[in-house]
Amino acid sequence: MNFSSDTSAPAHPRVLEAVLAANAGLEASYGNDSVTQRLRGHLAEAFGTDDFDYWMTASGTASNALALSCFCPPTGAVLCHAGAHIAVDERGAPEFFSGGGKLHLLRGPDGKIGPAQLDEALARINHDFVHETPAHVLSLTNLTENGTAYSVAEITEYAAKAHASDLVVHLDGARLGNALVATGASPAEMSWQAGVDVLTFGLTKTGAMGCEIILLFGPAREKRRELEARAKRSGHMPPKMRYLAAQAEAMLAEDLWLELAAQANAMAQKLAGGLEARGISLAFAPQGNEVFALLSDDQVTALRAAGAVFYPWMGGSQRLVCSWATQPEEVDALLGVLTG
Amino acid sequence: MNFSSDTSAPAHPRVLEAVLAANAGLEASYGNDSVTQRLRGHLAEAFGTDDFDYWMTASGTASNALALSCFCPPTGAVLCHAGAHIAVDERGAPEFFSGGGKLHLLRGPDGKIGPAQLDEALARINHDFVHETPAHVLSLTNLTENGTAYSVAEITEYAAKAHASDLVVHLDGARLGNALVATGASPAEMSWQAGVDVLTFGLTKTGAMGCEIILLFGPAREKRRELEARAKRSGHMPPKMRYLAAQAEAMLAEDLWLELAAQANAMAQKLAGGLEARGISLAFAPQGNEVFALLSDDQVTALRAAGAVFYPWMGGSQRLVCSWATQPEEVDALLGVLTG
Amino acid sequence: MNFSSDTSAPAHPRVLEAVLAANAGLEASYGNDSVTQRLRGHLAEAFGTDDFDYWMTASGTASNALALSCFCPPTGAVLCHAGAHIAVDERGAPEFFSGGGKLHLLRGPDGKIGPAQLDEALARINHDFVHETPAHVLSLTNLTENGTAYSVAEITEYAAKAHASDLVVHLDGARLGNALVATGASPAEMSWQAGVDVLTFGLTKTGAMGCEIILLFGPAREKRRELEARAKRSGHMPPKMRYLAAQAEAMLAEDLWLELAAQANAMAQKLAGGLEARGISLAFAPQGNEVFALLSDDQVTALRAAGAVFYPWMGGSQRLVCSWATQPEEVDALLGVLTG
Amino acid sequence: MNFSSDTSAPAHPRVLEAVLAANAGLEASYGNDSVTQRLRGHLAEAFGTDDFDYWMTASGTASNALALSCFCPPTGAVLCHAGAHIAVDERGAPEFFSGGGKLHLLRGPDGKIGPAQLDEALARINHDFVHETPAHVLSLTNLTENGTAYSVAEITEYAAKAHASDLVVHLDGARLGNALVATGASPAEMSWQAGVDVLTFGLTKTGAMGCEIILLFGPAREKRRELEARAKRSGHMPPKMRYLAAQAEAMLAEDLWLELAAQANAMAQKLAGGLEARGISLAFAPQGNEVFALLSDDQVTALRAAGAVFYPWMGGSQRLVCSWATQPEEVDALLGVLTG
Repeated sequence: MNFSSDTSAPAHPRVLEAVLAANAGLEASYGNDSVTQRLRGHLAEAFGTDDFDYWMTASGTASNALALSCFCPPTGAVLCHAGAHIAVDERGAPEFFSGGGKLHLLRGPDGKIGPAQLDEALARINHDFVHETPAHVLSLTNLTENGTAYSVAEITEYAAKAHASDLVVHLDGARLGNALVATGASPAEMSWQAGVDVLTFGLTKTGAMGCEIILLFGPAREKRRELEARAKRSGHMPPKMRYLAAQAEAMLAEDLWLELAAQANAMAQKLAGGLEARGISLAFAPQGNEVFALLSDDQVTALRAAGAVFYPWMGGSQRLVCSWATQPEEVDALLGVLTG
Repeated sequence: MNFSSDTSAPAHPRVLEAVLAANAGLEASYGNDSVTQRLRGHLAEAFGTDDFDYWMTASGTASNALALSCFCPPTGAVLCHAGAHIAVDERGAPEFFSGGGKLHLLRGPDGKIGPAQLDEALARINHDFVHETPAHVLSLTNLTENGTAYSVAEITEYAAKAHASDLVVHLDGARLGNALVATGASPAEMSWQAGVDVLTFGLTKTGAMGCEIILLFGPAREKRRELEARAKRSGHMPPKMRYLAAQAEAMLAEDLWLELAAQANAMAQKLAGGLEARGISLAFAPQGNEVFALLSDDQVTALRAAGAVFYPWMGGSQRLVCSWATQPEEVDALLGVLTG
Repeated sequence: MNFSSDTSAPAHPRVLEAVLAANAGLEASYGNDSVTQRLRGHLAEAFGTDDFDYWMTASGTASNALALSCFCPPTGAVLCHAGAHIAVDERGAPEFFSGGGKLHLLRGPDGKIGPAQLDEALARINHDFVHETPAHVLSLTNLTENGTAYSVAEITEYAAKAHASDLVVHLDGARLGNALVATGASPAEMSWQAGVDVLTFGLTKTGAMGCEIILLFGPAREKRRELEARAKRSGHMPPKMRYLAAQAEAMLAEDLWLELAAQANAMAQKLAGGLEARGISLAFAPQGNEVFALLSDDQVTALRAAGAVFYPWMGGSQRLVCSWATQPEEVDALLGVLTG
Repeated sequence: MNFSSDTSAPAHPRVLEAVLAANAGLEASYGNDSVTQRLRGHLAEAFGTDDFDYWMTASGTASNALALSCFCPPTGAVLCHAGAHIAVDERGAPEFFSGGGKLHLLRGPDGKIGPAQLDEALARINHDFVHETPAHVLSLTNLTENGTAYSVAEITEYAAKAHASDLVVHLDGARLGNALVATGASPAEMSWQAGVDVLTFGLTKTGAMGCEIILLFGPAREKRRELEARAKRSGHMPPKMRYLAAQAEAMLAEDLWLELAAQANAMAQKLAGGLEARGISLAFAPQGNEVFALLSDDQVTALRAAGAVFYPWMGGSQRLVCSWATQPEEVDALLGVLTG
């Protein structure tokens, strides 16, 4: 009954098979290998466009920070939710990679930036007022840190506003697959078609060993060389990149990533339904693979005694995360403890 | 006949087996998994001490820069050879991670810092003279970028001098195994016993997929928490660290890494011997797995025509690198081209 | 009727006289001149202690950022009010100087951090949780950005809490004189005796040309050399420092700075009284030299038509700042417009 | 007999008079004052063009680092002489301001970059090779750190080469006046007409209290807003900028700066001539206000005993610096010691 995080899950067997298959013969280093080159076709198919560039790292923090640092100058700021991963869980990575840029934290319910908050933040930008730090990037997260999802319409609206203020739009898609399954949108619809300029396309939580692809769409591609230079100097250009690429290839093949995201979401829905059936309230309506349950102290104690693993969350709820590896029996077992 | 780099080689099969074996069940994230924890014992055995802490990344650039940034403040400098990897091949990573620290480049033949150059650099340190940047770290590389090896005696002497000037001693051991095999020294003798405070212990070039362990020895261990914080904010704390640890475990088990380094060195010796037998001079006496041959333009053309892959090097030689995967037949084939 | 800012005022004539007097003969550079050295005695007298070190810059932003960067590592955070100058008016200087450290913004009425907010922020610090950025410094501002003053008792209480959590206490005293006059406290009582470790002692707004002294008290003095190194590399070690020191000397002599702060405060009191007598509400109870008036649009229009200069402030009030140079006639003239 | 540095000299009386004159009435802050605005006309006249923007700081280190950071990205490098002030005397300011950019140190006699060294450095630039840091800026210094001067022809040639490689050309003119007097060139000829894109125009050593103007010429003006933002966040936007501007105005009026530079150069020529007449060799042919004399230990001892102040220099010479305040009697006195 381990609901601590989707990063606790192992990788899907097909990912390992691909890594094994990639381990044959000599290959050029630093991303010039055949597997990395081949990945372009898979990404083009998944995102329905050829107008993109990409780079891979093994860390979502790295991919987010690299992506942001290409668009937020040291004298600029990134708009994001106050609870965003880049704001609270990355130990200042955006500030480090950007050379001292700032995050402007916006509020809004359910882990989503409120429309009024965004409008106000955009209205405040004044490049002529040298004392204040103007925003250069809007960073959204989907699935949000509260397990909720922005719809394609919301992202499209926010991106349009951001573009109207000359901001670049970043999407932290550490759980993109979960958000896509939840909303029924396609990768294209939720990224470049919605106005996303640069995407952190996470596969680790979905089922890879560690693979988070940065995608630059359309005009953002002009930063490709800068992105690679920044990747190199931050140690995110490992010599044998074929092993990163092989993971991505396995996940994209036959839409394995979406299949695994759907499995995780289904387990979360089963869990949420079971909790509500037992009269337990949820802090947020679960749309992806995370459930935030308002458990009593007794319930928490009972669950822990039964061996369940999960973390308390800001605001008083308990976060229960399902992954591709979560079994229905585990969900049943957890619910069983709460039934007693 | 690919002699381009030891990073072009695949990983050794036992590394992949270990990764596969680690892919079972749920594990705590961010280095708290059982494989990473278990690694301590293997490292203790390899280095003959318990007085160390460690962190892993998938990149030598990252491990070097993280190691240096814990000991070189933004107002300080690192002494290193003018041809060191940290100086010429890492796109400014040490400057980035240290927050704008400097590298003071020292000269010396065969890729090794000359004793007089070191003495002069140490003598110049004046913490009271605020205008100049004082050195805080001495960074040595073994195997050097020219394929030569510092002896344990040399490292011991240099480290003693550095310590006498209150410098911390870093060893870039991207090819540590090759240097150990070349000199007959033990890991302990060439690291903490010689005065090395912080080691980048490279396994990627030796035969892993991507694993470079930072080891803090003795008093340097006080930087453990800072090292982890810097690793996190630079994106070098991937959630599923078990896959890094599994590689290290496989390499350390039964000294696989030293066995593979010995194979690579042996191929380089065979290659060097064959070249010299054909009257071809070497730019440096080869001590590890790299041979720098002074080939004529005709010889280069002939080799390339025959399909050999290798890179020209600064100073006019051609670098030929052997790895654990280099086969005697490849060496023979290359030498055969030069015989004709 | 210029109430735009106390930085619009000229320097007091005695400051200029001192600068003129310092312009005689040759002096050692970079702070080794006789005027800078002599300043120690004046500061010791003003602050009632010899246990301090000091450095001068011509900019409050520089002095704040230098002070913070000596105590907040790149992996750490500074606690400050959401409206603090370091947060909203310094274009990311603290992030730049600290190498990417963060500001954790706290709320509280009247420009002062609320006690519960401080407690909560301190309770959240967890150095063992590598993902979040722990606070290393508490930065208070007195006079606050809303023209209110922390009492010595408040600073003492906050500093004690901060110290109990191993934080260093910084005081941004850009308007320290105004706060001292308002509260009746001595410089010693409001700084090191209250637990302030590092002070930005502002004299520019009080009546200098440009002089902001960083004072390190007690244990904080161990950072003296680092402070100087950081000052040098950020361009805050001008060669002819005698001109900075001469300003400070003139301001400290016979407590000129306190006399000038008292004048400015008195004008603000006169202004505030006059506004309230005309039925105009104030957004904050004025304790120093700043008045935040809730003027109607008509009143604003009338004032501007009459030639009054002032800026609108966040929250809808108008900020009216008095300086040492503000004349009673100007206050009367402004009030006269509002009477009509 | 103080020949320690031109920064030890006081400011010229007319500078102080101007500062005093500027100290009247209220003025807008942060560079919007009338004196700063008025300066444009003086600069346009001095440099014979209107196609420029400018910013002032009180520090040459600050002005150099700000200038460089607008043109050298964190992933880039600056080409400069190994003995350049930015390389050895600024405690890593360029690395700090650029966010971790590098300096590539070039050699050449007499403190000047050798033509072959420049060609080789330019030829090495390869933006497609991500591992190495490509140069983005060429930084020249005139007067050089060895008291020699580049001719306009040399700067023109070097700038043309740099531009052909897409580099921006920076001139560190801390002693620009001395170089102009030495070569007979006009400010325009030695700056924008020669291909200089960004100039650090130093007035401090020439006779100001502390004023170093950054000038952006032509296409470089697109960095104006970035320059101001960087100035603000580095604390180089002091609120009462009128005092900086007043200094510049006084120096530019009636070419006072060139008159003072000529005086200093004349004293250096007198000194150099006297030394050579006494059989003392000079390390470099003195072209400005600095003389590097190869004195014997006995001579050094005798001079110090007589109260002369000067510093030993790298390479074994003694640096003797004249300023606008150096009197012929002082030179005679020094020479007199060496005669005895």
